Amino acid sequence: MEYLTAIYHVRASAREIAARAEALALEQSVEMPASAIRSDYVRTHTLAKVVDIESIDEALFRVTLALSTLTTGAETGQLMNMLFGNCSLQEDVQLVDAELPPDLRRAFPGPRFGLGGIRARAGVFGRALTCTALKPQGLSPPEHAALCTIFARAGLDIIKDDHGLADQTYAPFAARVRACQRALNAVERETGRRTLYAPSLSGDPRRLAEQLRVVAGEGVGLVLAAPMIMGLPVFQALACEGFGVPVLAHPALSGALRIAPPLFFGKLFRLFGADAVIFPNFGGRFSFSRETCQALVNAARAPWVGIAPALPVPAGGMTVDRVPELVATYGSDVMLLIGGGLLSAGYALAARSEEFMAAVIAAGAAPPATTTLGSA
Amino acid sequence: MEYLTAIYHVRASAREIAARAEALALEQSVEMPASAIRSDYVRTHTLAKVVDIESIDEALFRVTLALSTLTTGAETGQLMNMLFGNCSLQEDVQLVDAELPPDLRRAFPGPRFGLGGIRARAGVFGRALTCTALKPQGLSPPEHAALCTIFARAGLDIIKDDHGLADQTYAPFAARVRACQRALNAVERETGRRTLYAPSLSGDPRRLAEQLRVVAGEGVGLVLAAPMIMGLPVFQALACEGFGVPVLAHPALSGALRIAPPLFFGKLFRLFGADAVIFPNFGGRFSFSRETCQALVNAARAPWVGIAPALPVPAGGMTVDRVPELVATYGSDVMLLIGGGLLSAGYALAARSEEFMAAVIAAGAAPPATTTLGSA
Repeated sequence: MEYLTAIYHVRASAREIAARAEALALEQSVEMPASAIRSDYVRTHTLAKVVDIESIDEALFRVTLALSTLTTGAETGQLMNMLFGNCSLQEDVQLVDAELPPDLRRAFPGPRFGLGGIRARAGVFGRALTCTALKPQGLSPPEHAALCTIFARAGLDIIKDDHGLADQTYAPFAARVRACQRALNAVERETGRRTLYAPSLSGDPRRLAEQLRVVAGEGVGLVLAAPMIMGLPVFQALACEGFGVPVLAHPALSGALRIAPPLFFGKLFRLFGADAVIFPNFGGRFSFSRETCQALVNAARAPWVGIAPALPVPAGGMTVDRVPELVATYGSDVMLLIGGGLLSAGYALAARSEEFMAAVIAAGAAPPATTTLGSA
Repeated sequence: MEYLTAIYHVRASAREIAARAEALALEQSVEMPASAIRSDYVRTHTLAKVVDIESIDEALFRVTLALSTLTTGAETGQLMNMLFGNCSLQEDVQLVDAELPPDLRRAFPGPRFGLGGIRARAGVFGRALTCTALKPQGLSPPEHAALCTIFARAGLDIIKDDHGLADQTYAPFAARVRACQRALNAVERETGRRTLYAPSLSGDPRRLAEQLRVVAGEGVGLVLAAPMIMGLPVFQALACEGFGVPVLAHPALSGALRIAPPLFFGKLFRLFGADAVIFPNFGGRFSFSRETCQALVNAARAPWVGIAPALPVPAGGMTVDRVPELVATYGSDVMLLIGGGLLSAGYALAARSEEFMAAVIAAGAAPPATTTLGSA
């Protein structure tokens, strides 16, 4: 029997924790009282086991379960179901880490391009990559294209759609993607430098297929997708064979899942095929701590047999003056995403974008700061 | 301009709440400082507006935003993105309700069968419906089929797969569904009474299509799906035209989203096409309160122009002795789901199942208890 390991933080008293951990093992496998199991096969092959309980403080425990790999069916959605399906409904439980045995891991090829593949496409080595966002939603395709021209002339590496750009009347997907990609093609003819575009995919599988035809037809360099909005199994299947280009994963709708961000965004999004993972950086508009962000970056890039590293993308209220701090913190194997921090320059947008590039080039190549080990 | 209304609970001080609410409106629409917006169209057509702030207590406020319907693209995933995409990452925010204007609502046909359609298929009127679950996972197809025979002879209305049953080696989807459906067909030939089967769908769109071919080929009566595992846009698209039979929606992986359960399970799952919504009942293994459950049931069944009522399915650690209490609480327009509470009877499984049926028949037709208005 092979097992995967799932680690939870469980709020309970010392008196209750042994029973609570056993109940969690039942909930995440057979979903019935152990006494009602009448099959030896079930007891041996599918029942989850409590393998460790450690006290964190008097009311919080680290509970390690061994889950049978057979129960996952080696499939993305069912793996998530086994790790956090029903117990996501129980407010005393947080999923903090998971370890997959090699046989199960081989079912998930991970990023098809990864950090190295994005660097190769962008032709950027020896420094962090730069990224910005097309926004606000409500602009027309020519207005988005005009922004692309400014950003590309400033030399930014990647321009992504705001994740709120979908297939709305004021900027339909096909018209927007054509306008933006053609603007970037024009700048490339002018400067010889190629800025890559990552449009935001959305909708059900039929609409996704239509959008991917536009992506392929226009020679678009990357795509953006929110796995929890799209559906994790859809994301994983498309990352394997459907996107055709690297995918930047966006965390929308997933931040409140009570799965530790280093595990969910760093490790599982990577496992499911994210070539880059966007996350809310510390000190911005969102609430992840510096330690959480460092652990997430470690999880995205750490050596993992058979799984390429993903490119971490700190984002969310970033500004150009933070570039040196961010490169010092994460090292240069990241992509820095500054959206509103550029756009707020108004008529000085081109100059602010050039400052961003200059700051990243000045920061150069750097290793990550030494950190305590994250949950990776 | 048409707007949808999104209502959030926001933790902030009285001094901070006005600015916090404005920041939330920016986050959920343009994602950039208002001062950086240079387009009149954006200010008029896509920027969200704070329309109300009410104090709940000194540290908690009810904030109402008006979001432009244009921004949703009338699409499931993008609607969720607008309601709770980025702010799901902000721990001080909970989404508690949403109201869609008629034009946007018409983009979502809601349940294709609904409460009435499931009653008609099951041929059950004037009492609550009964449901149980095939488990534990690890049983073989013949073992699941043997359980089906026992439950069907006891007269249960619907037998669903445990949501942990996917496409695992010990009970592959096609073999399991064939064995179970044929067992139910055999009982029907014997007793003249048809028990409906709801197998659990899982996987990416290609696998879902294969599973739906099995469902159609075997004449299976319903299906079970977890929208947050499958992906909401996939679920909605299949509910419109792909399932072919009523779908029971399972809450796995969605409970901790910080979206109020009456809104998410009662209203949005229904809007996206769930014919029945399974939810963790009060007093079971999960943490929803009685008031939350009543509000959820209200939201699932309340009159809503153009959208059929969904059948509420209280579940999770239920027992036969609670049948009178549950029918008194919710009225008889529910389906009571008892899984482990039957299976724990061991060799007395048939007798316990008959007791369940007898209790529901005895409870008969009943209106719901008068309750305070929920968030429906």
